[in-house]
Amino acid sequence: MAELYNAEPWVRGHIIRAMRTIEPHDALRLLNGGPVALLTTRFRNETNVMPVIWTVPLSRRPPLIGVAVNQARYTHDMVRFAEEFALSFPGRDLLNHTHYFGAVSGADVGKLELAKLPTFKASKIGAPLIEHCLAYVECSLDDALRVGDHTLFVGRVLVVQAEEEAFDETWRIEDREYRPLHYLGLDRYAVLGDRLQAELRTTDEGAIELAESKEERERREEEEALEAERRRREGEEP
Amino acid sequence: MAELYNAEPWVRGHIIRAMRTIEPHDALRLLNGGPVALLTTRFRNETNVMPVIWTVPLSRRPPLIGVAVNQARYTHDMVRFAEEFALSFPGRDLLNHTHYFGAVSGADVGKLELAKLPTFKASKIGAPLIEHCLAYVECSLDDALRVGDHTLFVGRVLVVQAEEEAFDETWRIEDREYRPLHYLGLDRYAVLGDRLQAELRTTDEGAIELAESKEERERREEEEALEAERRRREGEEP
Repeated sequence: MAELYNAEPWVRGHIIRAMRTIEPHDALRLLNGGPVALLTTRFRNETNVMPVIWTVPLSRRPPLIGVAVNQARYTHDMVRFAEEFALSFPGRDLLNHTHYFGAVSGADVGKLELAKLPTFKASKIGAPLIEHCLAYVECSLDDALRVGDHTLFVGRVLVVQAEEEAFDETWRIEDREYRPLHYLGLDRYAVLGDRLQAELRTTDEGAIELAESKEERERREEEEALEAERRRREGEEP
Repeated sequence: MAELYNAEPWVRGHIIRAMRTIEPHDALRLLNGGPVALLTTRFRNETNVMPVIWTVPLSRRPPLIGVAVNQARYTHDMVRFAEEFALSFPGRDLLNHTHYFGAVSGADVGKLELAKLPTFKASKIGAPLIEHCLAYVECSLDDALRVGDHTLFVGRVLVVQAEEEAFDETWRIEDREYRPLHYLGLDRYAVLGDRLQAELRTTDEGAIELAESKEERERREEEEALEAERRRREGEEP
């Protein structure tokens, strides 16, 4: 069972929030759907933050996630030296902050200080976590693989926390304020809207088959109606 | 400039579609936002399909993308032997097909035949592409990295095609029918809804700064209104 991480829920705007610590393998599902994350690092007395979308779950046992970072990035060396990193998942209210963190380099400015965005201490690593986010993952560095012009940092998931209104087994996306941000490219972002539920059917023999789709049902109903119409006409006509 | 791939647009329901061939590095942005893809393979006379969400752009030069596949999966050996794979990006009308492809194994059944989903020939590789999808990526296998209980297949992007109503520099998500599918976990999917645009401002010195957010503006206006109210009261009271 997940336990309350903070006894005292904290207030964000008018919303009372409660962070729960969940299982490390839940980090894999936090990456489902492809949300933006804010990657934070601390090395000696330096901290930095950078938005990342090139993230991927890599393994269930052990729970590993990957983040591809350009070798020219300030964050690249920060992760390499610190050998750990954290991900904070922002909602739509941090849209401009997220974009800003991607537009300027930590080599030039102290982004976290300039943005005046409060942080709090992680449980097991030195990197700060960013307040007002929907979920958090703390990782130790397991491996660093050079692939083309990027390095894929392989992180072993140590701790995962999530806002219960935002994530419960999957991202819930019921409430607009609790949906994670997705990056499309350029200055464009979006959040997940319509929730869809897949339907399959199981045959008497236990085989899994496709359920009839809405379109298939409509087509079938249309054909049945036409057929009924044809029969009626044929019955009416001598 | 992108050129028309098919001179004749094809019909999907009532929608006329036109696929364009775009640049290989556009494949990286196709993965932005985290859509589900259908990974197809062909080896000798076998074909298979499997939905994948553990995908990640890995490099711009050369354009490389990664797909993590469980080592026990039928697709795992198909990719390893064929040394190439394709990704087809489904929209919401292929929701049940997508889920079905994840629920059964190609080791047991010929999924593509059972699903009666038409395919067409790829330009440069042997794997089939799935009709009625929004975009396609063809890859040759560049590397296969073992990470935990999965293998990260590194694909070099050879050809990219996209429906122009669905993707133009970024996923457009204007029309519901042209939004890619996102997988949340369990049997839950979603599509991107509200499009958001980030705003930054550039100072006279050329530095990039955060633009005032809607909440910051509201807070400022509220404070200004309270301040004005306070002054008015103080002015009224002797």
